[in-house]
Amino acid sequence: MAGSRGMVSAMVTLDFWYDFASTYSYLTAARGEAAAKAAGVELRWRPFLLGPIFRAQGWETSPFVLYPARGTYMLRDLDRHLAALGLPELKPPQQFPSNSLLAARAALALGKAARPAFTRAIYHAEFAEGRDIAERAVVAGALTALGHDAEATLARTAEPAIKDKLRGETEEAARLGIFGAPTFVAADGEMFWGNDRFEQALAWARR
Amino acid sequence: MAGSRGMVSAMVTLDFWYDFASTYSYLTAARGEAAAKAAGVELRWRPFLLGPIFRAQGWETSPFVLYPARGTYMLRDLDRHLAALGLPELKPPQQFPSNSLLAARAALALGKAARPAFTRAIYHAEFAEGRDIAERAVVAGALTALGHDAEATLARTAEPAIKDKLRGETEEAARLGIFGAPTFVAADGEMFWGNDRFEQALAWARR
Repeated sequence: MAGSRGMVSAMVTLDFWYDFASTYSYLTAARGEAAAKAAGVELRWRPFLLGPIFRAQGWETSPFVLYPARGTYMLRDLDRHLAALGLPELKPPQQFPSNSLLAARAALALGKAARPAFTRAIYHAEFAEGRDIAERAVVAGALTALGHDAEATLARTAEPAIKDKLRGETEEAARLGIFGAPTFVAADGEMFWGNDRFEQALAWARR
Repeated sequence: MAGSRGMVSAMVTLDFWYDFASTYSYLTAARGEAAAKAAGVELRWRPFLLGPIFRAQGWETSPFVLYPARGTYMLRDLDRHLAALGLPELKPPQQFPSNSLLAARAALALGKAARPAFTRAIYHAEFAEGRDIAERAVVAGALTALGHDAEATLARTAEPAIKDKLRGETEEAARLGIFGAPTFVAADGEMFWGNDRFEQALAWARR
């Protein structure tokens, strides 16, 4: 036990900051756990909210909505990535960007071991099934399918401890200079923005 | 001659849209000609102005200036790319973004055979030497070093034909939905944004 704990604590880590409304974070969530494992890196899944960060710089919604040419391109670019990764064709959620508050709180309530699978399930509901992840039923469905107690977990999302935890994570993201998602931050503070930088971030973490 | 012309016209092409003020376009300009040649793709170098496109969406300057967190990150990200490509360390120009009007007109005045080397020389002056590419002396220096008649080329940049040509290219970029640089557009209209997408764009062009 002690030996095994020692190995875990000595493992290099990489923080994976993501927002449940972020299309490109979906790509990393789909492939991140396997890629990090293959690289010998412990990926720390850190959901946060981009909304307050966008608002602080004057954006009331996603740049993909504010700048339609970027939004149109993003959808096409995402299609190409989904095909390359063998993921289902995009079924955009009716509301974009999604309100990711409930899902983010639920992810923090679950704890880190359960977070990757739950994260993938939420992204799948949102971008492969076009569902509204702000709905309790959608989050409850993902929890139940993964064997969690949905009612208990949803009850925890209303507790101050979880609300404060998410607020703190979002404040830390802002403090780190994070301005989009996904963002990867190595133990030495080196920052990489975008699913495109994931391999580079893994390599940096292992240096 | 006819056979040689036939080969050229049958070659697959990829349009490389760039602004001389764009840091990430610098990366593609540095590696683009060799990579395209290796892929058997004819790269068409198409300078344009991002300024009017940014202004049309309400930006009076570069997003790297408007959003300082993005600007800070971009400089660090660029550093890592420059090191990986073996390019000189960044020496940021005193004025960022540079006024790229004169350099873009000169590139169009030169014609396509001379454009890649001239483009690389301008980016080198701007980002490796920190010089102001809006200065006639800087553009003249790049022209002279490459064996061109600097006075004659600069005189052409003041002619209506060249001014109209650049305006037309910028309008075409906007019409295509281009919102940043570098952008790659394949013969079938497929668009790829960013130096990160260059390999994907080359592969698409060859399909």
